[in-house]
Amino acid sequence: MMRVLGIDPGLRNLGWGVIEVSGAKIAHVANGICHSAPGEGEGDLAQRLVSLHVQLTEVLRTYAPDAAAVEHTFVNKDAVATLKLGQARGIALLVPAQFGLTVGEYAPNAVKKTVVGVGHAAKVQVDHMVRLQLPGVKIAGPDAADALAIAICHAHHLQSAGRLQDAVKRAAG
Amino acid sequence: MMRVLGIDPGLRNLGWGVIEVSGAKIAHVANGICHSAPGEGEGDLAQRLVSLHVQLTEVLRTYAPDAAAVEHTFVNKDAVATLKLGQARGIALLVPAQFGLTVGEYAPNAVKKTVVGVGHAAKVQVDHMVRLQLPGVKIAGPDAADALAIAICHAHHLQSAGRLQDAVKRAAG
Repeated sequence: MMRVLGIDPGLRNLGWGVIEVSGAKIAHVANGICHSAPGEGEGDLAQRLVSLHVQLTEVLRTYAPDAAAVEHTFVNKDAVATLKLGQARGIALLVPAQFGLTVGEYAPNAVKKTVVGVGHAAKVQVDHMVRLQLPGVKIAGPDAADALAIAICHAHHLQSAGRLQDAVKRAAG
Repeated sequence: MMRVLGIDPGLRNLGWGVIEVSGAKIAHVANGICHSAPGEGEGDLAQRLVSLHVQLTEVLRTYAPDAAAVEHTFVNKDAVATLKLGQARGIALLVPAQFGLTVGEYAPNAVKKTVVGVGHAAKVQVDHMVRLQLPGVKIAGPDAADALAIAICHAHHLQSAGRLQDAVKRAAG
């Protein structure tokens, strides 16, 4: 049995989801969203990143996942948005690695392909499949749904690559 | 007297520079570059960010700056480069804020305008003015020179805004 954390990075809303994997079975553990609202004045961005770091560290402490993965998104619309996302993504990658986890990365299409079966599935289909695979789950919001999809995707990849046991061993060692 | 840390963020080379400000006088304290070489395999990016976090934390512990500033660069050439820079920049902003500092941000042109006098100065002019203002300084590399320029820029802005004493008080309080 192992726990897998998925993270959908964002500066304002950083989604996270933890699932438990046992053989071919998966089950929901918890999900949520780390918020950092824009404030004012000098030093605001740095403070928001500290806030995300504190919140995400608390998630790792509380749910003690054995593996983690972060969505690898590109925002092509403009450099400002991409830089912002990158800063939040830096925290999303940093925290699990600070807990000694190897952090996987998946492009959105890879996540959709694993969870829905096609790379260009609509967001609503991903949400639907996440709910089907995690019966009774209450999802904190769209970013948390995406995070659970990333966790499911990572669990499948770890299993198919026979790396599940390796990850559990590493986490225990 | 106060110490100001400047940071020029980058994933492979993150430049830093610390200066000491006393009234209108500035003096060099230290400068260097935090390196994180690209490795291989899953989890490599997260490991590089952890490495930058560890190295930059050590700089803050060693030199105990009272104020910090990070360059606010845009890479317009492509989204991949901007995302990478953003991730490194996330760490550059996070660490000083974790030490309780307010982190200033300056666009490259603002730094050049303060240090050289014109916003579109060449890199070699910035390097020259940094050496002029910090006599005898040994600079670890171009990224460290940029970081010292950012520290000088931040020191000037804190002084002209009469915020030097405030920052010292905050750091002491």
